[in-house]
Amino acid sequence: MSGEDAPAQQQNAVDQKQETKPAEEPKNEPPKTESPPAAAAEAAATPAATTEKVPEEETFTYRALVLTGYGGYDKVKLQVKKGKPALKAGELLVRVKACGLNFADLMARQGLYDRLPSPPVTPGMECAGVVEAVGEEVTDRKVGDKVMVLNRFGLWQEVAVVPASHTFLIPEGMSFEEAAALPVNYITAYMMLFDFGNLRPNQSVLIHAAAGGVGIAATQLCKTVKDVTVFGTASASKHETISEGGVTHPIDYRTKDYVEEVRKISPKGLDIILDPLGGSDTHKAYNLLKPMGKLITYGAANMLAGQKKNLLAVAKNWYHQFSIHTLSLIQGNKSVCGFHLGYLDGEMELITQAMNTVLDLYKDGKIKPRIDSTWHLEQVGDAMRKMQERNNIGKVILTTEPMPEEEKKEEPKKEDKKEDKKKEDKKKDDKKKDDGKKEEKKDDKKKEEPKKEEKKEEEKKEEVKKEEK
Amino acid sequence: MSGEDAPAQQQNAVDQKQETKPAEEPKNEPPKTESPPAAAAEAAATPAATTEKVPEEETFTYRALVLTGYGGYDKVKLQVKKGKPALKAGELLVRVKACGLNFADLMARQGLYDRLPSPPVTPGMECAGVVEAVGEEVTDRKVGDKVMVLNRFGLWQEVAVVPASHTFLIPEGMSFEEAAALPVNYITAYMMLFDFGNLRPNQSVLIHAAAGGVGIAATQLCKTVKDVTVFGTASASKHETISEGGVTHPIDYRTKDYVEEVRKISPKGLDIILDPLGGSDTHKAYNLLKPMGKLITYGAANMLAGQKKNLLAVAKNWYHQFSIHTLSLIQGNKSVCGFHLGYLDGEMELITQAMNTVLDLYKDGKIKPRIDSTWHLEQVGDAMRKMQERNNIGKVILTTEPMPEEEKKEEPKKEDKKEDKKKEDKKKDDKKKDDGKKEEKKDDKKKEEPKKEEKKEEEKKEEVKKEEK
Repeated sequence: MSGEDAPAQQQNAVDQKQETKPAEEPKNEPPKTESPPAAAAEAAATPAATTEKVPEEETFTYRALVLTGYGGYDKVKLQVKKGKPALKAGELLVRVKACGLNFADLMARQGLYDRLPSPPVTPGMECAGVVEAVGEEVTDRKVGDKVMVLNRFGLWQEVAVVPASHTFLIPEGMSFEEAAALPVNYITAYMMLFDFGNLRPNQSVLIHAAAGGVGIAATQLCKTVKDVTVFGTASASKHETISEGGVTHPIDYRTKDYVEEVRKISPKGLDIILDPLGGSDTHKAYNLLKPMGKLITYGAANMLAGQKKNLLAVAKNWYHQFSIHTLSLIQGNKSVCGFHLGYLDGEMELITQAMNTVLDLYKDGKIKPRIDSTWHLEQVGDAMRKMQERNNIGKVILTTEPMPEEEKKEEPKKEDKKEDKKKEDKKKDDKKKDDGKKEEKKDDKKKEEPKKEEKKEEEKKEEVKKEEK
Repeated sequence: MSGEDAPAQQQNAVDQKQETKPAEEPKNEPPKTESPPAAAAEAAATPAATTEKVPEEETFTYRALVLTGYGGYDKVKLQVKKGKPALKAGELLVRVKACGLNFADLMARQGLYDRLPSPPVTPGMECAGVVEAVGEEVTDRKVGDKVMVLNRFGLWQEVAVVPASHTFLIPEGMSFEEAAALPVNYITAYMMLFDFGNLRPNQSVLIHAAAGGVGIAATQLCKTVKDVTVFGTASASKHETISEGGVTHPIDYRTKDYVEEVRKISPKGLDIILDPLGGSDTHKAYNLLKPMGKLITYGAANMLAGQKKNLLAVAKNWYHQFSIHTLSLIQGNKSVCGFHLGYLDGEMELITQAMNTVLDLYKDGKIKPRIDSTWHLEQVGDAMRKMQERNNIGKVILTTEPMPEEEKKEEPKKEDKKEDKKKEDKKKDDKKKDDGKKEEKKDDKKKEEPKKEEKKEEEKKEEVKKEEK
């Protein structure tokens, strides 16, 4: 997450891209490798590296998603990078298995997120994978460790170099998809609810977009505290799922005024409101707070209207942007907080504390990331669309597993069928919930399996196609 | 504290005042008493009521401080009220022994505090005394109970009618002065630090006016958490005292830039800042926050410049008033909170929770109100001046004990000598601290004693002089 460390590989990768386009062109500059020979040797031993006698630095290739410019879904392209990234002291080379999509990635694509360097750049704040090489001075990670990673950007690729301090060991029994779904959403929800929010028993919480990644994480975390009442907004079709997940009062924000709905049930207002929307919704949230209430705003989703930057939506959001005078806060006995994990640079100590607590809750079976859908790197556009159009329930995940050739020929819409099927599966799963967590975990894996099995058959044949046609 | 209950007696008293001015004029309207005969009989049995055969409602008199108009110190006048205040269901009649002065009272005198009704009105948000009569439906208080009281206003008088729910039993061994010093300052400090602030071990806190009532309470409360670093501003002459009280780094804000001083020691900034100043100091505080830091603003002391309302100071404060956009909060990962106990109407449940915790800390010897000085009702102007000019270390208290005739003739400045003496006593006390808390408590009582003893000799002779000459 630190601004200094993070861009290292990215810079490297960008250099390579510029130098190696097209990919077949021989690389005529020695790679800026600083990796110790030992690490390189270790890396060479992995199955993915198809070394012969040519120096590995030159033959090493990996696929990476690259934001090539600001705009619509098609601005994120799959490219092949060449050359093994160098490792500095304190860094790890991670073979990425799954990546999480976050709202910040969608904002970034439209040029609305200033923590991402200018294109061309690889987005991605979180992933899960396996340690493939270890830099000097790293003592607490070894080759083969399964880790989840949190970084400012640069994780939507098959291979990522990250500071070891930005990695967390994946607990026993957690899938790579779950591990990729956990860091951003759960740390965000945890720090908002328990640091700024100071959530305590008997309190009431409003969670907007309760079916989104943060929404589901926040709902689960609320349920770890006694007698917390959760109000959650989501479109009606998602209500059954979020209710089962712990939302006490689901509200269809598309057909009802959520403020009125909350007031009907809780006339005095609420203790905590998590606001990812911004603009006029922040005003509403402020007015809905009880005395001693806390409004925690963590985004400006209202700015996102359509695929490309919508200047009207952005301007409207700015125009309605909430601004508060301290005398009003004093007279209301209220708190307004802003949170964004992407700006918590250099606060890995705080983040690690939160993560450790979250992982303990996972091990105790109290939280469990909910995967909405998993997509191949080639499908990143559809994956982003699904999230941006709010069609997801839970986390949208990218897998680095190669996409079977036959799937590539299919219409992009097919995943909708998959989604419907999943919803049905989910309902069945939820009914079976009483059978215990282990059962459920297996079911989740099964849901992913069919796709993976198809893919494995195709795996060897696959040739990566650069999407820059 | 509730707006509905509080003004009841006040209204009554104001009526009486208007009807009975001058006090000798016979009251020609039957008192609007709703007090049950039993309560009245109980009240009649107290020594203060000098009943003969005339109905007590008419002969009952008590002294009250009344804000007669907005302005300087002389606007608060001592008056005699006639007629026993009526008790409604749920109310208590309290014989007031000591009252606390708060910054809101100073603001109120200048017309800068909208929680006080228009003059004429009796100020006073907190007091300690003895229950003298109990209204219907009160089950948890009885005649003779020693209580501290928190109310929106109306407590600077010898007799006050208050909702029983606004009273707290005074623990064993706590003097009336301490009890009058505790509610506003400690509940304020407690709720700021532990509700909004979510103070945890190893954090850092900046306390402005660390020698003031809230400042001393906040410092003591910080010390109940492991390894909290306290930065405290105060003029140099108070540093020894506040250091002994728990301030890790005292800063003389009159000669040094406190922002620079904090940065020297804590370059990354602070976790929590308590800001009673407002205006440009709120901006400084915001910039001094660490990521995940909390700024809690609870006043606008910068508005108070001079005895009377200083329009320039008020305007400047408004002009520099801090206003924050949510996007700035998000990018900074910061929290801005406003707190004022006077606006927490109807939140007695929250307040009672905080009070119970504070009283437990008192019983455990972990906190102890520090009395700066105790003044007779006649001296309220000097008492206010002392506080407004920041010459106090700890709480400024009013006692309802009658003022000896000889003291009345003395120059008002005498209390400064008393203060010097106290400071010396305090130093001795502090050196003796290791002798244990009990010892210290006795010493404190002794400090108050000399004045009281003088007074007792004079007590019977005293005739109340109305200050309206």
